[in-house]
Amino acid sequence: MTSYFEGIAPLNFEGPDSNAELCYRHYNPDEVVMGKRMEDHLRFAVAWWHSFAWPGGDPFGGQTFERPWFGDTMAAARAKADAAFDLFAILRQPFFCFHDADIRPEGGSLAESTRNLEEIVDYIGEKMAAGGPRLLWGTANLFSNRRFMAGAATNPDPDVFAYAAATVKTCMDATRRLGGENYVLWGGREGYETLLNTDLKRERQQAGRFLQMVVDYKHRTGFKGTILIEPKPQEPTKHQYDYDVATVHGFLKDFGLEDEVKVNIEQGHAILAGHSFEHEIALAAALGIFGSIDMNRNDYQSGWDTDQFPNNVPEVALAYYEILKAGGFTTGGTNFDAKLRRQSLDPKDLMAAHAGAMDICARGLKAAAAMLEDGTLEARRQARYAGWDTAAAQEMLANGTLESISRRVLEEGLDPQPRSGQQERLENLVSRFV
Amino acid sequence: MTSYFEGIAPLNFEGPDSNAELCYRHYNPDEVVMGKRMEDHLRFAVAWWHSFAWPGGDPFGGQTFERPWFGDTMAAARAKADAAFDLFAILRQPFFCFHDADIRPEGGSLAESTRNLEEIVDYIGEKMAAGGPRLLWGTANLFSNRRFMAGAATNPDPDVFAYAAATVKTCMDATRRLGGENYVLWGGREGYETLLNTDLKRERQQAGRFLQMVVDYKHRTGFKGTILIEPKPQEPTKHQYDYDVATVHGFLKDFGLEDEVKVNIEQGHAILAGHSFEHEIALAAALGIFGSIDMNRNDYQSGWDTDQFPNNVPEVALAYYEILKAGGFTTGGTNFDAKLRRQSLDPKDLMAAHAGAMDICARGLKAAAAMLEDGTLEARRQARYAGWDTAAAQEMLANGTLESISRRVLEEGLDPQPRSGQQERLENLVSRFV
Amino acid sequence: MTSYFEGIAPLNFEGPDSNAELCYRHYNPDEVVMGKRMEDHLRFAVAWWHSFAWPGGDPFGGQTFERPWFGDTMAAARAKADAAFDLFAILRQPFFCFHDADIRPEGGSLAESTRNLEEIVDYIGEKMAAGGPRLLWGTANLFSNRRFMAGAATNPDPDVFAYAAATVKTCMDATRRLGGENYVLWGGREGYETLLNTDLKRERQQAGRFLQMVVDYKHRTGFKGTILIEPKPQEPTKHQYDYDVATVHGFLKDFGLEDEVKVNIEQGHAILAGHSFEHEIALAAALGIFGSIDMNRNDYQSGWDTDQFPNNVPEVALAYYEILKAGGFTTGGTNFDAKLRRQSLDPKDLMAAHAGAMDICARGLKAAAAMLEDGTLEARRQARYAGWDTAAAQEMLANGTLESISRRVLEEGLDPQPRSGQQERLENLVSRFV
Amino acid sequence: MTSYFEGIAPLNFEGPDSNAELCYRHYNPDEVVMGKRMEDHLRFAVAWWHSFAWPGGDPFGGQTFERPWFGDTMAAARAKADAAFDLFAILRQPFFCFHDADIRPEGGSLAESTRNLEEIVDYIGEKMAAGGPRLLWGTANLFSNRRFMAGAATNPDPDVFAYAAATVKTCMDATRRLGGENYVLWGGREGYETLLNTDLKRERQQAGRFLQMVVDYKHRTGFKGTILIEPKPQEPTKHQYDYDVATVHGFLKDFGLEDEVKVNIEQGHAILAGHSFEHEIALAAALGIFGSIDMNRNDYQSGWDTDQFPNNVPEVALAYYEILKAGGFTTGGTNFDAKLRRQSLDPKDLMAAHAGAMDICARGLKAAAAMLEDGTLEARRQARYAGWDTAAAQEMLANGTLESISRRVLEEGLDPQPRSGQQERLENLVSRFV
Repeated sequence: MTSYFEGIAPLNFEGPDSNAELCYRHYNPDEVVMGKRMEDHLRFAVAWWHSFAWPGGDPFGGQTFERPWFGDTMAAARAKADAAFDLFAILRQPFFCFHDADIRPEGGSLAESTRNLEEIVDYIGEKMAAGGPRLLWGTANLFSNRRFMAGAATNPDPDVFAYAAATVKTCMDATRRLGGENYVLWGGREGYETLLNTDLKRERQQAGRFLQMVVDYKHRTGFKGTILIEPKPQEPTKHQYDYDVATVHGFLKDFGLEDEVKVNIEQGHAILAGHSFEHEIALAAALGIFGSIDMNRNDYQSGWDTDQFPNNVPEVALAYYEILKAGGFTTGGTNFDAKLRRQSLDPKDLMAAHAGAMDICARGLKAAAAMLEDGTLEARRQARYAGWDTAAAQEMLANGTLESISRRVLEEGLDPQPRSGQQERLENLVSRFV
Repeated sequence: MTSYFEGIAPLNFEGPDSNAELCYRHYNPDEVVMGKRMEDHLRFAVAWWHSFAWPGGDPFGGQTFERPWFGDTMAAARAKADAAFDLFAILRQPFFCFHDADIRPEGGSLAESTRNLEEIVDYIGEKMAAGGPRLLWGTANLFSNRRFMAGAATNPDPDVFAYAAATVKTCMDATRRLGGENYVLWGGREGYETLLNTDLKRERQQAGRFLQMVVDYKHRTGFKGTILIEPKPQEPTKHQYDYDVATVHGFLKDFGLEDEVKVNIEQGHAILAGHSFEHEIALAAALGIFGSIDMNRNDYQSGWDTDQFPNNVPEVALAYYEILKAGGFTTGGTNFDAKLRRQSLDPKDLMAAHAGAMDICARGLKAAAAMLEDGTLEARRQARYAGWDTAAAQEMLANGTLESISRRVLEEGLDPQPRSGQQERLENLVSRFV
Repeated sequence: MTSYFEGIAPLNFEGPDSNAELCYRHYNPDEVVMGKRMEDHLRFAVAWWHSFAWPGGDPFGGQTFERPWFGDTMAAARAKADAAFDLFAILRQPFFCFHDADIRPEGGSLAESTRNLEEIVDYIGEKMAAGGPRLLWGTANLFSNRRFMAGAATNPDPDVFAYAAATVKTCMDATRRLGGENYVLWGGREGYETLLNTDLKRERQQAGRFLQMVVDYKHRTGFKGTILIEPKPQEPTKHQYDYDVATVHGFLKDFGLEDEVKVNIEQGHAILAGHSFEHEIALAAALGIFGSIDMNRNDYQSGWDTDQFPNNVPEVALAYYEILKAGGFTTGGTNFDAKLRRQSLDPKDLMAAHAGAMDICARGLKAAAAMLEDGTLEARRQARYAGWDTAAAQEMLANGTLESISRRVLEEGLDPQPRSGQQERLENLVSRFV
Repeated sequence: MTSYFEGIAPLNFEGPDSNAELCYRHYNPDEVVMGKRMEDHLRFAVAWWHSFAWPGGDPFGGQTFERPWFGDTMAAARAKADAAFDLFAILRQPFFCFHDADIRPEGGSLAESTRNLEEIVDYIGEKMAAGGPRLLWGTANLFSNRRFMAGAATNPDPDVFAYAAATVKTCMDATRRLGGENYVLWGGREGYETLLNTDLKRERQQAGRFLQMVVDYKHRTGFKGTILIEPKPQEPTKHQYDYDVATVHGFLKDFGLEDEVKVNIEQGHAILAGHSFEHEIALAAALGIFGSIDMNRNDYQSGWDTDQFPNNVPEVALAYYEILKAGGFTTGGTNFDAKLRRQSLDPKDLMAAHAGAMDICARGLKAAAAMLEDGTLEARRQARYAGWDTAAAQEMLANGTLESISRRVLEEGLDPQPRSGQQERLENLVSRFV
């Protein structure tokens, strides 16, 4: 079989002035930024579901893409894997990600589904051994099949919980088998459509125990990767339990998992929860649970998950700035949880979308690194809090009481005057780098 | 001085068919609902700020109300208190709430502000002793004065932290002095305008310590009331740290305060955070931190805090349903954090707004009680989870592992089938009561 | 074949105290409201697409419903029609609505699709002749098939425009054949995903000409029904040309169609455009283009089209109030463009959803009629504008100039004082009826 | 009096690598872009209200700025004008804009207000004659004073209509006196808070007549400037009649004003209406009513008008791209309807905000010009519609009927196949320029 991407040569870094449509203008894997190769900073991953499995449907229309590998057979699954590795060979990104449902046909039973999964995992493993990208993370699709319509871990039926647990086991096994660096849980159906039929407390307890079992299995199987939760406020459900980073943090604390589990933050999900992407990253870093990112872009005027490829350098730069400040990725990376618009039918569209996004991220990373190396922004931030660095202020914070503090305020006739927050000046500063 | 509300007689319960414009059609304080007087269920409070201090401004226009008590003097403050108790005498609601800034003029120093506060608190105390309502809660306004523009507890300047702490002390003292049943913290400026000048982690730490000091002061002064945090996602800030109930819960856990502090949930703030009001109440109840409510209504098409008086019985009924399920209010109550539209200039408007809202709440409460007493809704909810009540399911939840569960799924060839969630049937059921 | 709804008896009006789950508690077709039978006021229609064709999918999961009539054959289409008329016989609503794609399988060519359509239209016609409901409106599905992914009338490819025109002809023919009282156009793909590839002006011109052809065809074929446009702001596109009522009005004016075409207003689409449902109805009435409604409910916290069955009487009452003020429906009606939640799997769910919605609408209608008959609300509204009813004010409005008016203001030292808008008092008044 | 901005030298273009905080890095007035000086393309204006009159308040807090010119006297008004021209001398932007209320104290009567206005207009006129910027537009503040709380032109009280008309006359006179190139109407209160007390049709008629009077006055006084309406969907009202460009267009058509009045489009208002800025510009251009822009930025997560200075080049570039495609500004320009964040207290903040915004706009303009000169984007757009350029397609569009078109589709067995929309490739193309 000839490659779907025939005629598209592997992409090279050609610099910003290249006239080629398909090339890297800014992403130069070997370029060193703040002492590390760009590839090792960004750790790009292609998402199997959007790029190889999604047919182009939306709530008002069906399939638009006509991929030769579409189908529900093992042969089709192998053809899909072949196409994926053809694309990887052109992009040369270092990672990919998958759900079980992306890579194998569903079987008539869990046993058959598992056999299908194992077989295709072997197939993918061979292709990886032959020189493809590594696995950033694997995950289980616990949301598409109708059995999960009322939840997986949080289902009112304990048999669905059991089925979900058994499914996650197969996916963790597959992830470990393929050397995955993380394992992700996204609770697409872990929420509710109506409170009227929902026992919030009970479902939360189920979710907590489920996650404890996952962590426990990780340790007992010696899986070294990170367990990640991906927050999302709603859609498909009316309310999803993993609403945002702060919510996940409280949940982890409640189940004693705050040192075991981190978050995989998606730009679009942050937006839908009413936050900026950089907020969610900064908060996760502050709470010690930052793990990885799903890089995409949500249309600000569309109230659903649009999962577009990123194209705004100033925004992307602020995200990488927070990531660099937090020390950069360890096991995490930049997964393009982004899909073509459904009118982008051609092989070239799929390639261009990834290449353009990688260039946008590279520009964002370089701008972020330059801001950090310049140091002005951080110096100004620290100067703003300088008052707190005195011994007296630290003593007040550590041991003050309302009475002792009040006494001092009255005695000293304290009347603190506001100082400029300099927001526009700081925004100008950032603009110099993006 | 003649009352501003002259000519408006105290409101009586006259039943739904009354032709009077100003009366209670549904709120009958002594009517017993589920074994408790309606007044004791609802525990209505009038909010000093909206009803007596707000001048009718919005971001595009200034004062529209012309109240004879407006002014920055102690005499005006007393006139305002007189007007408030005149209104209370007509509504006969059992509670009121206030910020320091609502009841006293700001002084030239904290000492002077405190003297003003103490003097007016004495004045209000006398009026209460003469037979007015009780104090549901007091709170400190740590957001209007420019000194707090960059935060109170979370200010980059430790002197502002100190000033805020000293201010809260005076407000807790005033609340205790007036027999307040709760003390509330709403962090209107505890957030940020831009991440560029903000150290999230530091500010969060400051907020946690501040709250610990408040709890500590409560215990040392023997204040028996409940400390409440009022979540809000944003406005006035771009991001407010007390985003929603889940966020506050995680924060309390982090600072060991989850048994010390509860939440005061506002309908409008829930809406702005992307939640339904009943969701926030149900979640707080599930997490053990439900305290009190600010009852109002936010326009669903306006992206800011509209603080309107409630007028939708089906929605209000669902809120009280969750409250009744959670055991009802203990120290909390129903505070009308609602303001007149700025075109509603007349004394009668102020009275009608409260009376109408109290009737809406009474209808909601009675509908909620009827649903609970009917029992069908709860029976259906429990039936949905019945599978979890078996010993085997409980054993799986308590002690299962991915392996043990997986083994059973495969051995039994488990293939759980979805069952109807019956949402529309449950909605129909609710409609029979509202 | 046995009916899918076997065991469910035709629904009767049993009054609000009935204990039956499936009955009408408020919808009493023969009850006279403001001089007209309730059935003739409300003119309920069942929507073929949601109730018989939708499989229960969402962007994150596939089919949940298992209807025996699903399939792509003419036999399945007939079985679906049989099920539809079984449901109609139970609900006894007076109307239904359909798209071509709901009732016939797509053929391999337009000719074959048309033959399929004609055959099933004959079949449905026979069933109607035997005593079923009438056709409120028909419409063409110009959005699901991939050929329409970039628009139908507004497609960059004139052949798609042609295909769409030919399709609309078949659907108008079918609508006329079945005695439809209206023909609807909803432009699901008439918009854009990105301005970068879009010529707004050109596409608007295509849309205008297309609509002129539709109106022309109506007249030449002697179709007596009303042509309706259904506004929606976005979804599936980023921006849809028929954004809202005001936008459609400007468009009609531009193409000289304001006396030929009216609007079919959907509650959910109004919400997504930032309007209340009653606003869109009132505006359409003010502009002389009110036609019909799609009655449903959009979740206020979900930014996509949730198409839920209505369940909030206070809101529905305000919609019918505007409709009654506008003189009620002529050819229009109340079409339930509402779908079951995808977890509502059972036949009983489908029946209960419609019955509950019809009761909600009946309550809304009766409340609206009572408010109108009471007359207080209208009297207050008119009193507010009474100043304009003087001859001097009318003269100023008709013939005033800035100079002449200015002269009078200065001469008379005019200083108009604001008067209360009484919003809360009016809301209280409404609450007495809902 | 010493200048408030003492110590800040006039800003010069220093290029992107300058280390100065206050300078132009990209805005070079004399640089020629597409055959025109940059200054003449961008036509920057400073807004008197935000930059000199706004005290820093928000709905939860009062004044933060302490400007020496604040006050309600004519002396303060002159001091404010002095400060304004000091700032203009530093920025050297070519235009400014004002409301009457920004530049003069309100008098006790319209006559006194008018005298105040005339006096300060003379004062400003003298300063302009001495070499300051020109007037881009003037406007009347018909929203802040309580007399306008229920509308100006759309008020239920005809005396308020009259007062508004007389006020607009004074502002048009002032604008003409100062050589203004446009006159703007923003209907901040022309909308409603509740439909319950509103007669939509009547108010729309009042608004239409009011605008006709304005146009009539323009012609009779020989004012050569453009009359502009500024759309906004809501805030301060629940619904504002000038919702968006499409709504204004329909309104103008209804009152025969589509050739007399154009639109002033604000980025933030576009966002609040659910549109992108470039959409509103492109639509206005397509409808022939594009006039001018209010350049700012609305926070995408805040549901109110945040009026921030722009800082995102990729977004700004798309706006200028549409403007350049439409032929550029004629009488219009780029008015910074943007305010400092209320924590930005210092003179330097005000200067930096403008300078940074001007640089962002200059970068946007240059990118837009480069894209146009490159021509690829336009060529691709046109190629997409090439099918319509055939004679047959144009004939179908002009004279086709559903029958004639249908006949052809069936005869030719037309089966049009979708072609890629290439969105990501076009986005990549844009990214090369921004």
